[in-house]
Amino acid sequence: MTLLLSVTGFDPKRWRAALEAADGDRDIVLEPAHSADPAIEYAVVWKQPPGLLEGLPNLKAIFSLGAGVDHIFADKALPDVPVVRIVADDLTARMSEYVVWRVLDHFRRGRAYRTQQAQTIWHERLQPAAREITVGIMGFGELGRDAAGKLRALGFNVAGWSRTAKTAEGVETFAGEDGLNGFLAASDIVVVLLPLTAETRGIIDAGFLSRLKRRTPLGGPVLINAGRGGLQNEAAILEALEQDTLMEASLDVFNVEPLPADHPLWRHPRVFVTPHAAAVSDPDALAPAVMRQIAAHERGEPLRGVVDRTAGY
Amino acid sequence: MTLLLSVTGFDPKRWRAALEAADGDRDIVLEPAHSADPAIEYAVVWKQPPGLLEGLPNLKAIFSLGAGVDHIFADKALPDVPVVRIVADDLTARMSEYVVWRVLDHFRRGRAYRTQQAQTIWHERLQPAAREITVGIMGFGELGRDAAGKLRALGFNVAGWSRTAKTAEGVETFAGEDGLNGFLAASDIVVVLLPLTAETRGIIDAGFLSRLKRRTPLGGPVLINAGRGGLQNEAAILEALEQDTLMEASLDVFNVEPLPADHPLWRHPRVFVTPHAAAVSDPDALAPAVMRQIAAHERGEPLRGVVDRTAGY
Ligand SMILES: NC(=O)c1ccc[n+]([C@@H]2O[C@H](COP(=O)([O-])OP(=O)(O)OC[C@H]3O[C@@H](n4cnc5c(N)ncnc54)[C@H](OP(=O)(O)O)[C@@H]3O)[C@@H](O)[C@H]2O)c1
Ligand SMILES: NC(=O)c1ccc[n+]([C@@H]2O[C@H](COP(=O)([O-])OP(=O)(O)OC[C@H]3O[C@@H](n4cnc5c(N)ncnc54)[C@H](OP(=O)(O)O)[C@@H]3O)[C@@H](O)[C@H]2O)c1
Repeated sequence: MTLLLSVTGFDPKRWRAALEAADGDRDIVLEPAHSADPAIEYAVVWKQPPGLLEGLPNLKAIFSLGAGVDHIFADKALPDVPVVRIVADDLTARMSEYVVWRVLDHFRRGRAYRTQQAQTIWHERLQPAAREITVGIMGFGELGRDAAGKLRALGFNVAGWSRTAKTAEGVETFAGEDGLNGFLAASDIVVVLLPLTAETRGIIDAGFLSRLKRRTPLGGPVLINAGRGGLQNEAAILEALEQDTLMEASLDVFNVEPLPADHPLWRHPRVFVTPHAAAVSDPDALAPAVMRQIAAHERGEPLRGVVDRTAGY
Repeated sequence: MTLLLSVTGFDPKRWRAALEAADGDRDIVLEPAHSADPAIEYAVVWKQPPGLLEGLPNLKAIFSLGAGVDHIFADKALPDVPVVRIVADDLTARMSEYVVWRVLDHFRRGRAYRTQQAQTIWHERLQPAAREITVGIMGFGELGRDAAGKLRALGFNVAGWSRTAKTAEGVETFAGEDGLNGFLAASDIVVVLLPLTAETRGIIDAGFLSRLKRRTPLGGPVLINAGRGGLQNEAAILEALEQDTLMEASLDVFNVEPLPADHPLWRHPRVFVTPHAAAVSDPDALAPAVMRQIAAHERGEPLRGVVDRTAGY
């Protein structure tokens, strides 16, 4: 069997090497060279060119190189085979590191202390206790639930918001449009770990930002988005920062990536920008899982992590 | 009974109010007003003036307003009564927040990403996994052990160094001078949570810094000191940064506090300075514990947290 690897935005070489290292018996072809090859049974992709997979007569499944699959569904000519997302401890751990790092940096007033250092000002800031703060996690799935546990271990209160009702020990959970107001009323720091779907696109807009808590123990609300750029209206975020209805933000994802050099988010003193690096997919950690799934599928076992095409995640 | 409150460096009013709120039946006097009062049976102090406690005929115990007691032992005319340190979940949790925050900021390349943002550079940095990093904690006591658990939960390997041999689940432990080389050879990031004693004063000197690991998955070693400024030779730290035998540092404590405005540590681009704010003693959280201990002591129960005067901690 042959596996098609299609990667946009970064060098596929490390992925190819890692997939080969995980299972040397497979033929791995790189897009675009052989992409009409009838021998191709599996595709492993990140932002494949639209239409790439349409003509493959024997395609059995499509694997995403990340937890998100919006980049796959952006292709309107997608064949009707299972689309599989990654669920892997390595990826989940990296995202929770990012979330805990950003929550702590806002909570422990990193920006203020860096400014004070630049001005050689020795001044202790009022510091609430973690138990006085609620971190609200939007998108309470694989990544959100893991981050929740790690934030709770540090003493934070945690709230979670999902599409369908969920429960988790020690977490106040909310679901659906009806639950959103209650969730936002509870949250001092909002962490967005939603997938990008038809329902969630643009959810962080002016109306959403106006519903964030005005008064928090930190002085104002904080937004952290490591889901997808398409979830956020960036002009609305800048406006909320100006209006002081948003105090600070950490953004890892943007509508246009790389974030254009002239974009005002780069320069806003209360915004921390990272280049979609919250949780990188490490080929060495993830390729073996993909290859194991393919082997299992060939033995007739079910695939794990197949997404719901109607829901879009 | 009367309680003497002596506080240097910050306003005693919040402490007085919190102590009174915790137990309204006690007489609380502020230094210096009544400091020779024979009614004084307990002293609650932060950097008391030398000799202050010497003349008190009925003093039964001295309570520190923090986890450290070096500020008390700096007084050479200290009466021979028990000296009690604070052990409190609130304080411990705050220190672990600081440690996790600083470890993650160095580990997740906060400095590089802030520099890139200032230059609008979209570039993903190579990011090791937490399991590829060992955080070494010097001073494996109340604070060090709690931080160790929280770092392990994030996936880091943890090593601990203490005076006497200790064991802790999942932590590689080292003890004493003989164990120090092994500890430093294992540690990519060194977190200092030692008390300041005759033995530990100046321990972070040129010789110590030269023994840090040269190559780490982050490119070089990181030093985080939230113990006491007296542990570190600041000229040696600056020299190690220049020699690139030290990659980055987070320092919360200094030999002279406030850190003088002309001190080069303020301006070093690879040093993060906070104003002895890693774990503030919150009066509302800690005063009740002091008052409960006093009440228990009056009932003849033993004090908890009495330090060893010979060891100095
Ligand atoms: N920045 C990065 O480096 C990076 C790395 C990896 C992943 N990500 C992003 O993180 C996202 C989440 O990953 P995951 O593994 O946690 O996904 P997941 O397990 O599928 O969880 C998604 C969560 O979002 C909720 N959700 C979906 N649509 C919703 C809606 N319309 N309203 C309310 N809640 C909704 C789901 O609700 P239910 O529980 O009810 O289904 C679920 O709780 C990925 O899709 C990807 O976009 C980013
Ligand atoms: N920056 C801040 O805001 C802040 C706030 C609170 C505390 N602190 C500092 O943190 C320090 C530690 O607090 P803690 O509550 O964890 O104290 P602790 O429970 O007394 O623990 C001290 C640890 O240091 C070890 N140690 C002492 N002398 C040593 C030596 N000569 N060689 C090797 N190890 C030695 C002890 O070894 P054994 O286990 O063998 O006894 C113990 O593991 C305090 O003393 C204070 O200076 C700073």
